[in-house]
Amino acid sequence: MPELLVVGSVALDSVATPFGAVREALGGSATYFAYAASFFTGIRLVATVGADFPKEHLDLLRGRGVDLSGLQISDGRTFRWTGEYGYDLNEAKTLDTQLNVFADFKPVLAPPLRRAPFLFLANIDPVLQLDVLRQMDERPRLVALDTMNFWIQGKKADLLRVLREVDVVTINDGEARQLAGEANLIRAARAIAAMGPKTVVVKRGEYGALMLCDGLFFMAPAFPLDAVYDPTGAGDTFAGGFVGHLAAMDRVDPSTLRRAVVYGSVMASFTVEDFSLNRLTRLTSEEIGARYDAFQSLTRVEA
Amino acid sequence: MPELLVVGSVALDSVATPFGAVREALGGSATYFAYAASFFTGIRLVATVGADFPKEHLDLLRGRGVDLSGLQISDGRTFRWTGEYGYDLNEAKTLDTQLNVFADFKPVLAPPLRRAPFLFLANIDPVLQLDVLRQMDERPRLVALDTMNFWIQGKKADLLRVLREVDVVTINDGEARQLAGEANLIRAARAIAAMGPKTVVVKRGEYGALMLCDGLFFMAPAFPLDAVYDPTGAGDTFAGGFVGHLAAMDRVDPSTLRRAVVYGSVMASFTVEDFSLNRLTRLTSEEIGARYDAFQSLTRVEA
Repeated sequence: MPELLVVGSVALDSVATPFGAVREALGGSATYFAYAASFFTGIRLVATVGADFPKEHLDLLRGRGVDLSGLQISDGRTFRWTGEYGYDLNEAKTLDTQLNVFADFKPVLAPPLRRAPFLFLANIDPVLQLDVLRQMDERPRLVALDTMNFWIQGKKADLLRVLREVDVVTINDGEARQLAGEANLIRAARAIAAMGPKTVVVKRGEYGALMLCDGLFFMAPAFPLDAVYDPTGAGDTFAGGFVGHLAAMDRVDPSTLRRAVVYGSVMASFTVEDFSLNRLTRLTSEEIGARYDAFQSLTRVEA
Repeated sequence: MPELLVVGSVALDSVATPFGAVREALGGSATYFAYAASFFTGIRLVATVGADFPKEHLDLLRGRGVDLSGLQISDGRTFRWTGEYGYDLNEAKTLDTQLNVFADFKPVLAPPLRRAPFLFLANIDPVLQLDVLRQMDERPRLVALDTMNFWIQGKKADLLRVLREVDVVTINDGEARQLAGEANLIRAARAIAAMGPKTVVVKRGEYGALMLCDGLFFMAPAFPLDAVYDPTGAGDTFAGGFVGHLAAMDRVDPSTLRRAVVYGSVMASFTVEDFSLNRLTRLTSEEIGARYDAFQSLTRVEA
């Protein structure tokens, strides 16, 4: 099975929503991505944590077969994020960010990691994203990238540089509009595709996802849930299911990409059903398959 | 072909969006509904206008075969609405409402109108909606109803009374939450179904539509448009395509209802491409068919 490499953050998140709260729970873009992808394919994680990082979290990831040989454990404290959501769960309010060891994160790929055929550059400094791509022994079959408003605003030239070299970008709707400088989302997606990535996946939270692929749009709703507890990590979990399915199939044709969007939506729908990775840690492959089928019934017009 | 009756408003709208403006253009819930439905089935309109209502608008509706025998032309001025939209086209800001002759609207159905097998009660006072239903010679095969925040807030008991007697309700997402007193849209839809209508269609503007039908959800995105000029009338046009298709098929089974949601989305997608009914007046059946097919490609996971 082709392998997937993710470079991103591992964090301790303190999150409050109208439905509860957690303190210093497992979080981070690479964590959510890797955990979700582990249901689909072999996955290796590159990130950094501090000496204070709880061993139980490492055990949790190892228990899913996530290769942690690229996880640096540095002197100092782990990256911490504190945020809250109101009833509009689409919008997080950041209360506190302590980068700690993540501030000095310089990913260095050991030789076995440089040969992964599928690479996900989670939301980190675009300079580091490009540096990771340069470290690969050969161009991976698929490179996907996620980013956020912070880099669009502060490091746009660097972001545009790495965007030219990736196949897929996953991005929030608001950030897609910001990156493209275009209020209309359809035109924004086309503008981003013109920056380099042949495939643009726009994550719209409770409104689902939109993919532009070779000039054609695909739209998937979010799975209808009657209880959403915490949207943290939904986007990275989406990406984990999305790229995980592509790696498992070892294909990136339009049909596989459409199915991958549905698998991404399915994985995200589980994540938001509980805080942190709690729902994912109880998840089974059977549940993923059943929700994939339910998702198809939900959107199918003709029987 | 089974016939469809709509009772609602015919108005003159003055609308400004970031992309242009119109003064005293043809509008009103029954107008958009009837014009859209006319592409699918025979349609009769019951509403009221003032003596100042331009004859060209009547000619436009008659030109589409809309039966206007139920349109009262009263002394006084036609209902006028003035509103504007910002870049967030999901939210209209009402600047002025002049009910004029609409304030005294008491729909009286002449005998031929009382036998329509399909009835759409557009967004008017729920007391009038129920009164219209009572005037029917026999219970229509399908009764659909639309409503808005104004009635939910001011006439909730009357609204609940008529809701008990209808088959389908079409409602905005915000208003669905308000009516159900429930922030989660999935639970809100279920709560509304428990009020009477077996089928609940939630209109989500640029995020598409959601249907709850016999306990099963169906979700359709909005058609991706790279230019939206004016969302006024999109919801009523949606309803016109939706009920129009059901009437044309003379069926209300779940598969037909799903196709009807897509036809509704297709019709709404045309309406927003220009101000007032301007895009609809240039529309052809071939364009409707082509966009229906494009819509299917847009959402189909498996080829």
